[in-house]
Amino acid sequence: MENPQTIAELGELGLLERLFRYCPGDVIGDDGAVVALPPGRHLVVTTDVLVEGVHFSDRTTAPADVGWRAVAANLSDLAAMGATPEGITVGLSLPGHTPLAWVEGLYQGMADCLNRWGGVVLGGDLCRADAVSVAITALGSVAPQRALYRSRAQPGQAIVVTGYHGLSRAGLELLLHPEWGTGVAQADRDRWIAAHQKPRPRLDAIAALWEVLGTDAEAGAIAAMDSSDGLANAVLHLCRASGVGAALQAVNLPLERALVDWVGRSQALDWCLYGGEDFELVLCLPRAQAEALQVVLGPDCAIVGETTVATEVELWLSDGGAPEVLSFNQGFQHFG
Amino acid sequence: MENPQTIAELGELGLLERLFRYCPGDVIGDDGAVVALPPGRHLVVTTDVLVEGVHFSDRTTAPADVGWRAVAANLSDLAAMGATPEGITVGLSLPGHTPLAWVEGLYQGMADCLNRWGGVVLGGDLCRADAVSVAITALGSVAPQRALYRSRAQPGQAIVVTGYHGLSRAGLELLLHPEWGTGVAQADRDRWIAAHQKPRPRLDAIAALWEVLGTDAEAGAIAAMDSSDGLANAVLHLCRASGVGAALQAVNLPLERALVDWVGRSQALDWCLYGGEDFELVLCLPRAQAEALQVVLGPDCAIVGETTVATEVELWLSDGGAPEVLSFNQGFQHFG
Repeated sequence: MENPQTIAELGELGLLERLFRYCPGDVIGDDGAVVALPPGRHLVVTTDVLVEGVHFSDRTTAPADVGWRAVAANLSDLAAMGATPEGITVGLSLPGHTPLAWVEGLYQGMADCLNRWGGVVLGGDLCRADAVSVAITALGSVAPQRALYRSRAQPGQAIVVTGYHGLSRAGLELLLHPEWGTGVAQADRDRWIAAHQKPRPRLDAIAALWEVLGTDAEAGAIAAMDSSDGLANAVLHLCRASGVGAALQAVNLPLERALVDWVGRSQALDWCLYGGEDFELVLCLPRAQAEALQVVLGPDCAIVGETTVATEVELWLSDGGAPEVLSFNQGFQHFG
Repeated sequence: MENPQTIAELGELGLLERLFRYCPGDVIGDDGAVVALPPGRHLVVTTDVLVEGVHFSDRTTAPADVGWRAVAANLSDLAAMGATPEGITVGLSLPGHTPLAWVEGLYQGMADCLNRWGGVVLGGDLCRADAVSVAITALGSVAPQRALYRSRAQPGQAIVVTGYHGLSRAGLELLLHPEWGTGVAQADRDRWIAAHQKPRPRLDAIAALWEVLGTDAEAGAIAAMDSSDGLANAVLHLCRASGVGAALQAVNLPLERALVDWVGRSQALDWCLYGGEDFELVLCLPRAQAEALQVVLGPDCAIVGETTVATEVELWLSDGGAPEVLSFNQGFQHFG
């Protein structure tokens, strides 16, 4: 066909040739890609699957944003492990009627995110399916003594959260219900929609961490996780993995003023804790280090509470009553 | 629920807990897994997506066989690169009504294949979807001077094929049409069905190659690819990547006698060349080395022809007429 519009018209080999443009030449055309990791570093691997209708829809997400988000979600996991991105593989399931422009948009978004944060497309697989899904595996590298785990928190550490939370959820609501946002300033609206469509993996926060701790520092008793499934979920996982509890102060949670003004404090708090997809980091570390990190990362980095010898994660509201006990059940459940 | 039957009843966290049993303890519960590669070796990465209704169906494939095949297909790609398996990640899309027993069967099959050939489950992702799909990324390691590429073939080399071809297709036909196989001996039938359901990645052939070439040998001008998309497809890819042609002798193609007896020589030849999913290896290497490799691998390893300075892949039939020119168009096309 002279003017291919769908991937069925283009055929598998034709589509592959188009997609090879997004890969470095030396990884194309073999059964696998060979990657030299930096000397002395360990491999870090993580994987995420995005499914049309579950994780994205044409209503709210352009193909380039699907690609960006898919890569950003994986790079966020690498950041949470303290790793530097090396590359990704892409397992792509597509209906035959998918427009070529959609697939090229997807790859352009992935390439843009990789160009911004590091890593290349190392390979992939294409297959036919009734719905679009994008399975990405991200590969990173880390000096083994600087790998970050969820299980390293100790009681009495500060809990640091990078970035405001709830913004991705706010952006999604604005995309689904534009009429709700008539009273929202254009700059806020744009920023929240960007938080949803083009999240930034916080690799910069890891660089800042080592800048604060010094060139010879090791991860030691620092615990980390990303907040992709919600801030509450991340704190709960860190505590469970480390065998500690946590006391969080609601007044210290990273809420954007404009968001509170729009939806009220209670709704903003709910989105902050349970909205998910903010792709920020939650770290547990000694308070002096936490305060130094906060200075480097700036005002949207918050110390939200501390780890405890208890087993529960308590949220202290500012009205002085009994704390709320947070649980996984309130959080994001794919099969709920 | 006391007796969970579907993953919707079990919930995501409950399912994850079941699946963690198939992972080593030290890779569970973080945003990624940390892997130490053997010193001096490079990473090799490859990925494959299997979709229900396209790559497998409940009619022909038990869940444990879906798991085995998915892993075997990826390990076959690692073998084609000359790599040793280190581990896999699994991106699993599932409808909520999927029986738990199906998912556990899938993981058991993957674990069995990894136990047999090497590697562990390093991580994964679960998500809800309307159809089952399994996206596997396999990670291996290779001494860089022993990595095998498709582009290294030179004119005048022998083309070696491990194993009989067409057996996986024969097994599939027997599963779809049991009545066709009434004249087939039980042992043949079982072997062909096993070739389809539980293919063996030819990691042993790579070990044999280095045994033949010696401990200090390097890959040099050896080219390799697996035959997952068919023997003809593999030869065509090797030739295109290396800028050579090939002359194949039909009489030397690895056909099983019993298969020819069952379906006739013409059909057996078609399945041998285009049937696909045999997961054997095709190598181009100097003739003396090829003959030595054949001695080690035994009678089902064949020298099927040689590379040429031409650009075409010619198949010489035994009747002495003009050769057939093979092309990709006859092969397996996912979006055709």
